[in-house]
Amino acid sequence: MQQAWPLSELAVRLGGKWREGADPLITGAASLADAGPGDLSFVAGPERLAEAQASAAGAFLVAPGMDFGRPAIEVEKPYEAFARFLALQLPDPDRLYPPGVHATAIIHPEAQVEAASVGPYCVVAAGARVGAGCRLGPHVTIGCDAVLGRDCVLHAQVTVREGCVLGDRVVVHAGTVVGADGFGYLPGPGGQVKIPQVGIVEVQDDVELGAHVTIDRATTGRTVIGAGSKLDNQVHVAHNVRIGRHCALSAQTGIAGSCTLGNGVITGGQVGIADHLTVGDGARIGAQAGVIKDVAAKATMFGYPALDFQESFRITAALRRLPAALARLRALENRGKGPATPAGPEQET
Amino acid sequence: MQQAWPLSELAVRLGGKWREGADPLITGAASLADAGPGDLSFVAGPERLAEAQASAAGAFLVAPGMDFGRPAIEVEKPYEAFARFLALQLPDPDRLYPPGVHATAIIHPEAQVEAASVGPYCVVAAGARVGAGCRLGPHVTIGCDAVLGRDCVLHAQVTVREGCVLGDRVVVHAGTVVGADGFGYLPGPGGQVKIPQVGIVEVQDDVELGAHVTIDRATTGRTVIGAGSKLDNQVHVAHNVRIGRHCALSAQTGIAGSCTLGNGVITGGQVGIADHLTVGDGARIGAQAGVIKDVAAKATMFGYPALDFQESFRITAALRRLPAALARLRALENRGKGPATPAGPEQET
Amino acid sequence: MQQAWPLSELAVRLGGKWREGADPLITGAASLADAGPGDLSFVAGPERLAEAQASAAGAFLVAPGMDFGRPAIEVEKPYEAFARFLALQLPDPDRLYPPGVHATAIIHPEAQVEAASVGPYCVVAAGARVGAGCRLGPHVTIGCDAVLGRDCVLHAQVTVREGCVLGDRVVVHAGTVVGADGFGYLPGPGGQVKIPQVGIVEVQDDVELGAHVTIDRATTGRTVIGAGSKLDNQVHVAHNVRIGRHCALSAQTGIAGSCTLGNGVITGGQVGIADHLTVGDGARIGAQAGVIKDVAAKATMFGYPALDFQESFRITAALRRLPAALARLRALENRGKGPATPAGPEQET
Repeated sequence: MQQAWPLSELAVRLGGKWREGADPLITGAASLADAGPGDLSFVAGPERLAEAQASAAGAFLVAPGMDFGRPAIEVEKPYEAFARFLALQLPDPDRLYPPGVHATAIIHPEAQVEAASVGPYCVVAAGARVGAGCRLGPHVTIGCDAVLGRDCVLHAQVTVREGCVLGDRVVVHAGTVVGADGFGYLPGPGGQVKIPQVGIVEVQDDVELGAHVTIDRATTGRTVIGAGSKLDNQVHVAHNVRIGRHCALSAQTGIAGSCTLGNGVITGGQVGIADHLTVGDGARIGAQAGVIKDVAAKATMFGYPALDFQESFRITAALRRLPAALARLRALENRGKGPATPAGPEQET
Repeated sequence: MQQAWPLSELAVRLGGKWREGADPLITGAASLADAGPGDLSFVAGPERLAEAQASAAGAFLVAPGMDFGRPAIEVEKPYEAFARFLALQLPDPDRLYPPGVHATAIIHPEAQVEAASVGPYCVVAAGARVGAGCRLGPHVTIGCDAVLGRDCVLHAQVTVREGCVLGDRVVVHAGTVVGADGFGYLPGPGGQVKIPQVGIVEVQDDVELGAHVTIDRATTGRTVIGAGSKLDNQVHVAHNVRIGRHCALSAQTGIAGSCTLGNGVITGGQVGIADHLTVGDGARIGAQAGVIKDVAAKATMFGYPALDFQESFRITAALRRLPAALARLRALENRGKGPATPAGPEQET
Repeated sequence: MQQAWPLSELAVRLGGKWREGADPLITGAASLADAGPGDLSFVAGPERLAEAQASAAGAFLVAPGMDFGRPAIEVEKPYEAFARFLALQLPDPDRLYPPGVHATAIIHPEAQVEAASVGPYCVVAAGARVGAGCRLGPHVTIGCDAVLGRDCVLHAQVTVREGCVLGDRVVVHAGTVVGADGFGYLPGPGGQVKIPQVGIVEVQDDVELGAHVTIDRATTGRTVIGAGSKLDNQVHVAHNVRIGRHCALSAQTGIAGSCTLGNGVITGGQVGIADHLTVGDGARIGAQAGVIKDVAAKATMFGYPALDFQESFRITAALRRLPAALARLRALENRGKGPATPAGPEQET
């Protein structure tokens, strides 16, 4: 059932200009290194020219003016056009998640489901609403009074706990849990006493949550994931956190309770942000960094504890000179005490 | 169906003293910053007075003697009373997890289920026992011979593997896996050979496990989570670990194989503890710390590798002075070699 | 139903030599510390002799020549023999995952299932193939066109997304997600634009994936987990990654996009590897290390950022001397300026 497109036709579909000549039949997409004769690949920029020349791809998406004698489509932004080509190859969503409510899905009589597709063994509880065009994979659980907007996709095994709200076009990958209790206890005479978590999670429009993300419900009020934000696999967002719009949090990042992230914040993988901090708009946090203070808008932070990247890089570079520096310090101390000791062969910039 | 309470009535319910005068109707709870006229909030201490005065809350829980002219209930511990108020607002558990065994739940004829609620599509295998008052959300799997005590709550998608034992009042959030195989292999001629993991996991009374926690079964014997301990989302506990009572492990913490944690151990988020270590009673491990040696009782550790917090903080502070110190060191070396070089403008405390 | 073996019989089964004399009945296995009179334990080497003498175990697996007057089986490799004994105690797989396709499993008419066991509420979608001898626990989802080889074991709640391919004898623990979309977006005028992820995941023969592992599908082509590799709980593997054969990745490790790991790579827990890096055959990465450059074959790396272990250890040791070194530096600076200042009592090796 693999589709095939003549290159000239793809040029039209992708909004590019077919460089006339060869018109190979394209059946797939691949990177330069992996492509074969049936594949369309792309040349991100002139620095990839040698790699492109060595590629076995049948054709290339290239910027205007790049010509190395191979079948090509010219487009202003080759990678964006490549992404549009990938979209052509996505499987039919009606095959993945067939239309209609599966006979085994349990929809509570007090729930409202306008969904295009509710998979086998889904459970939609009392008071829940699932908007038009939503697709729910197998074994999805929508808790009491939870609300899904229009055109959401929830893959297998997703859990949305009671009262939580998803906007429109939200995508949630398999296994993710929205609305588990926040981690809040008070010390008591017989151990820790649970603080009831009666708030909810609000996931705004166009958010995508990876697999095995956990977003805890607020103690009161809302934990918020702002519109258009993207959270990678295994990200953890604690209770009362507010994440702005168009953020991108890489895998295994953890945001502790009551943090506020502005818009456009980007984190690398495995970042940790301590509780009750504010991270300004457009801040960037390097992988594995540990943020323990507020971060200014547009700042770039690295390290543990996280510092401004320039200071962090200076420290990291200095660290590699530290062992030799200690020897040099000792030599200096000895210089005044006895026969001169040379500072040693350590290099220094 | 939102409930409403006159403030004077709440004072009785929460064990406080209504400061007579206004008696607003309270319909919700919120933090000082988020509260509106229908909300009860709390003033944790005098340092929050300005914030309280600026709050739109309809009423406040305050310590005796704090009066800023707004409707209030006096209580010794405002936050604890607030937690009791939150408990009043929890949804009816019979609505979330309706009583009885759902018609689609599969209970093996050799299983014993006294549970108050077994949700749709749960699977309880041969030999398993589920105690009175337990509530199981949808899609919960209880493996062969596993045992749940009384009044446990297992949210959707929880898996308890064969033979594992949960005590009474254990709460397990969605997606958590209790009893997967420990990560143990022996080198063999054709690659790693699996060491069968025939032990179990024992989760004692009053433990709460967050969402997507993984606790591996022991190679032999038991992996133990002690009574009253609380594990946040995405915590990993490897095989043969023994965690004491009333510990609190924050999100994404990982405990490697065969560690022993005492009672009352607290970890920040993303902490790692290397295998076969002992952490003493009451020790506290800062977020992202990497523990590679035994930790004494009541110690407070930070850093990677983790050190006593005082040493760790000294090193962290010294690190920020390191780049300038290297320049000063160079200047000192040059001092003896030629024309005097001033030590430079670097500040030092 | 607990089995019991005379020690002499176990010697035959485990390929060892029974040291004639006492022939106790063995009913279980345990570590030296935990063992009781019915247990067989093992003495890994002479350094464990004192612990063995103090053990209450009923019998021991020992290397030839080790004799401390207790019932024993002599074997060349006591721990390997112990592992073989553990295998004798594994529960009957037909009890855990009964043979046959459960009546509630939904097998699409266009799917091919030769499996030995498909558990309750499993969903096998159109075009999927499940090989002979596979065992699927409850609530497993196999997406369209996904392929499982022979004799795989997928525990409860596992999701294999459309098109992904597992080899033979692959073991996947509960909740793991194979084939979620990679985390790829392009900046657009209205926020991030998703790059469709049309590749797959290929999990080769004899791989074991822990609980809550996430392996993302490739943008194009394949994300590959090489034959015999073992991934611990909560490991994250991003799109386009290629992991070689016989690797072992410990819990909570994250591999960012497009990395290539050779054969036999070992990571400690919570390791992070930044995107597009190459890690050579046999490299070892210490726990919590953050790899930001290519790693040579057989290198051993530690730290954040990761460095060769020798350099990393030197720096770690030097760091502990840094606060005192700064004081000594100050003293040296003062030496030339006024009355002599002693270098202070700081020790130095």
